[in-house]
Amino acid sequence: MTGDVRVRATVIDLLQGALGAKVLTDPAETEPFSHDRSHHPWQLADAVVRCTSTQDVVDVLRICSDTTTSVVPFGTGTGLEGGANLSRGSVCLDVSGMNRILRLDPGSLDVTVEAGVKRSELNPVLAEHGLFFPVGPGVDASIGGMAATGASGTNAVYFGTMRESVLGLTVVLADGTVVHTGGRARKSAAGYDLTHLFIGSEGTLGVITEITLRVYGIPPSTVLAVCAFGDLVAAARVVQRALGEGIHLARAELLDDIMVGAIDDFSGLSLERAPTLLLEFIGGPAAVAEDAERVRALAEDEGSVNFGLVESAPERDRIWQARHDALPAAAAMKNGAQTWSTDVCVPISRLADCIGQTKADLDASSVLAPIAGHVGDGNFHLAFVLSPDDTAGFAEAQRINERLVERAVVMGGTCTGEHGIGVGKTEDLIREHPTGVPLMRALKGTLDPLGIMNPGKVLR
Amino acid sequence: MTGDVRVRATVIDLLQGALGAKVLTDPAETEPFSHDRSHHPWQLADAVVRCTSTQDVVDVLRICSDTTTSVVPFGTGTGLEGGANLSRGSVCLDVSGMNRILRLDPGSLDVTVEAGVKRSELNPVLAEHGLFFPVGPGVDASIGGMAATGASGTNAVYFGTMRESVLGLTVVLADGTVVHTGGRARKSAAGYDLTHLFIGSEGTLGVITEITLRVYGIPPSTVLAVCAFGDLVAAARVVQRALGEGIHLARAELLDDIMVGAIDDFSGLSLERAPTLLLEFIGGPAAVAEDAERVRALAEDEGSVNFGLVESAPERDRIWQARHDALPAAAAMKNGAQTWSTDVCVPISRLADCIGQTKADLDASSVLAPIAGHVGDGNFHLAFVLSPDDTAGFAEAQRINERLVERAVVMGGTCTGEHGIGVGKTEDLIREHPTGVPLMRALKGTLDPLGIMNPGKVLR
Repeated sequence: MTGDVRVRATVIDLLQGALGAKVLTDPAETEPFSHDRSHHPWQLADAVVRCTSTQDVVDVLRICSDTTTSVVPFGTGTGLEGGANLSRGSVCLDVSGMNRILRLDPGSLDVTVEAGVKRSELNPVLAEHGLFFPVGPGVDASIGGMAATGASGTNAVYFGTMRESVLGLTVVLADGTVVHTGGRARKSAAGYDLTHLFIGSEGTLGVITEITLRVYGIPPSTVLAVCAFGDLVAAARVVQRALGEGIHLARAELLDDIMVGAIDDFSGLSLERAPTLLLEFIGGPAAVAEDAERVRALAEDEGSVNFGLVESAPERDRIWQARHDALPAAAAMKNGAQTWSTDVCVPISRLADCIGQTKADLDASSVLAPIAGHVGDGNFHLAFVLSPDDTAGFAEAQRINERLVERAVVMGGTCTGEHGIGVGKTEDLIREHPTGVPLMRALKGTLDPLGIMNPGKVLR
Repeated sequence: MTGDVRVRATVIDLLQGALGAKVLTDPAETEPFSHDRSHHPWQLADAVVRCTSTQDVVDVLRICSDTTTSVVPFGTGTGLEGGANLSRGSVCLDVSGMNRILRLDPGSLDVTVEAGVKRSELNPVLAEHGLFFPVGPGVDASIGGMAATGASGTNAVYFGTMRESVLGLTVVLADGTVVHTGGRARKSAAGYDLTHLFIGSEGTLGVITEITLRVYGIPPSTVLAVCAFGDLVAAARVVQRALGEGIHLARAELLDDIMVGAIDDFSGLSLERAPTLLLEFIGGPAAVAEDAERVRALAEDEGSVNFGLVESAPERDRIWQARHDALPAAAAMKNGAQTWSTDVCVPISRLADCIGQTKADLDASSVLAPIAGHVGDGNFHLAFVLSPDDTAGFAEAQRINERLVERAVVMGGTCTGEHGIGVGKTEDLIREHPTGVPLMRALKGTLDPLGIMNPGKVLR
């Protein structure tokens, strides 16, 4: 690749001197660490450092800082906006080997983990103590990656996102300085909120190496309600009314008819192919029954005729797994297709409108894009299903995505509720936060004066 | 006051030229804007600007920035750590006249208010739509002040603090630049979290002028449980076990025997003078009854013999008002006394220990200090009751407070859960966040290079 800047051999020598065999340079080994799951461009990493401790991260950042070498932090590579995509000249700093659960205090409902711990590794350990960690995107992301992108998922309507779940962080700054933010107290008014400065910063301000999380007692009862509607607007209205009446919804997911078809086919379900709500209720048995009945009345009032309750845990798990597999299910709709997933979030009362106008855009186009939404948060996803060589399709998706983002921002919403800015939405960020971006740039300059931390991501 | 620096006459002339009669300089008028409710020292403001718009705040900050004049933002003056106390040479920037509710969207469960709006002004407007805003310290603080200190209150165990409640802010920076952070989306992964940078910054990074808040549907049923225990440890354990079992507690307050006596006397209640829990349950009627029964079983298992439910709304309100009046109730225990209220927050499992050791300190001293705790958060308050001229008592309180803070930090907690750093806990902040304070200083330098924003507060 003529003209590209490679990581200098002297830098790789320094890294190997300090970190030995943890430094990978063989392209066959570095490829999996060079990109996330988005359609955004990436380049092969010249060097990947497989860090296994905060000290390793310090060593890498000191060397990179001393040599003004760019660093791209990497967790599981499950991102959707190119936030972990490598650019030539950058060292990949992989934390997936930092996968220890460092401390668990069931009595305080908190746990401290290393950044590479995945949700699938944390929850079984918590379950032994009757606890769980609710935040979870569809994929099995790392906790560090989830903190770095401000991730959320289907439970956010009740339990919040990573922003509401992280009590404290260990972060290594660009120059190798280690900072401990927050702590274990469930609330604190002690100084500036450094924890939230790093949540959602996508590795551009520092590398998160340890995370202290709130965890929760597993509720005694859980019931899932499934109900189909004649249109998306009625479905969205049920959730809005339920929240307005103070009903506790643990999850409130909306699938359009196309997405229901996709997950039916992919996961062997037999849901009615209509706009569908998946609503989950948690608490004591009486509370769960009561909440479900109250929402059934709302659903019937809005025209649903098949409000059904799923009480069996395996059956609920099967449906939620199918929901979490929405992205591969979408990809499977077309032979050899890939997906491009985008998301926006709008004020709840604007959600039905925003989805409706987006559906109209899609109907007027040749692009296939099923919709799934965290309707209790006003957040929804489009998954464009495209053949890799369909240049016209990508251009059309680009146009629809731009209109979607503009629509969301005009409605008082945001260009991304969950996926982050990465490289895909840097212009959208400026559009959404014209007064905020200059301040973000100033913060970036203060924390990373050499500009080595994940350059080109979030801000460009 | 020889040697003190006053606000220069030219600055006052500039302010009066731009803001006319909004500028107060008569000591009889400026005194109420010169201090909060703490025991920390303050000086009479030479000039108070009663801002009524974001533009007024811009005008003040431009003048102060141009003339390198310090500014102390002021809301209701209900703070407890001197965060709004005036120092000579500073202009008081009062936002209490910014008291308009700018926008309410019941369908989206959000509202935008000016910084001077008080809780008591917001909730009646929300109630007309079946909504409420849950965050509330004991006093009737302004929403802007609550955001600036990261306030919380009795509902935090369920609804979170201001950190979890603010969706977006309008902030005026030191140089008069207006920044809009966040927005109305209930979650966003769009760029750095500027909103949380300002929450808890106590006016040292900018002046918050508008706040967008999450609000909630009023739940159909609410029940308050009151139960006394033989000791504080058993009471704390009930709450810990309830949370561990996934029971929804909307409030979980602990009062020690001395505080129960104080509020009984002050508010005409007749609670048993023993360590007492006030636990509130919300939801549908069946859920509330079920949760209360589950907690009754836990309370009886821990030795409570008088678990009683209060279902009448006026009676509940009377008890909560008494709880919120804990500080004046403490002051009323001694003729002519004033209170010095401090707070810490520790991991939930350490709360009983932390309170127990603190009680032992108090028992071994001559100082009177009833205790009230937000036990579901691990947060509790001591209210030292002192005669204004009791120098030895203040010194003793100082010593007990230092030991309390050190104990909390050693336990993994924080030097303040709710009250903020102000001028009273700047040394404690350094002890708690030795690696964080240098970064906080760097952020302060970036946002306020002239050091004019509430100098000496939070960082010194």
